[in-house]
Amino acid sequence: MPDASTVADLHDEVTCQARDMLDRIAGKWSLSAIHELAWGPRRFTELKRRLGGVSQRMLTATLRGLERDGLVRRTVHPVVPPRVDYELTPLGVSLLDTVCRLMAWTVDHMADIERARTDFDTVGEPKAS
Amino acid sequence: MPDASTVADLHDEVTCQARDMLDRIAGKWSLSAIHELAWGPRRFTELKRRLGGVSQRMLTATLRGLERDGLVRRTVHPVVPPRVDYELTPLGVSLLDTVCRLMAWTVDHMADIERARTDFDTVGEPKAS
Repeated sequence: MPDASTVADLHDEVTCQARDMLDRIAGKWSLSAIHELAWGPRRFTELKRRLGGVSQRMLTATLRGLERDGLVRRTVHPVVPPRVDYELTPLGVSLLDTVCRLMAWTVDHMADIERARTDFDTVGEPKAS
Repeated sequence: MPDASTVADLHDEVTCQARDMLDRIAGKWSLSAIHELAWGPRRFTELKRRLGGVSQRMLTATLRGLERDGLVRRTVHPVVPPRVDYELTPLGVSLLDTVCRLMAWTVDHMADIERARTDFDTVGEPKAS
């Protein structure tokens, strides 16, 4: 549990605007793309393959959003055919540690979440109520 | 930048299933609700007021999802009229530190993101390309 005063300081700052930014950053494909780019620059097709299940349109929109937010840099190399790389900017790198923590938490607690879902769906109502 | 081997270990585990879980946890309203519940139990109407901009339907769905995932406990107190409280479970508390970091990062970097967006929208193309 974080220090109460830290939470208190944060609270007033977490405005509607911050939530809207969070909304972009914290989508599953944004987080997955940032996580994937921890490895270094990637081409679009590499990213698409690594992020199994993402559609071309969704990945395009995700990368464009991250680029617009200054988290990802898109570089077009003047070769034939043109090669386009995506990589984290310093701002993106500054977010990486937190993203990795969130990913790690999710992986570590998948079984707990799965069990909670099964319980919830079986009982139909929360056990505590 | 996290240690490369940590990223490597994580990578293979971040499966499609984990991403689906992340999708629920990492939505802006889920993160905001978890963050708000750091303060202790809250009633629905209190949460709704604190999370300005969330609709009744969205908050209901968000809390139900978090409850199903075992992150939030809903308690109905047998008074007239019934009082319903929401609070973090131990699993929810275990996620709190990471959520607070993500919130703090967003608040700390709002100006950077805003500047990047303005640059992107002005130029129409990323500066690096």
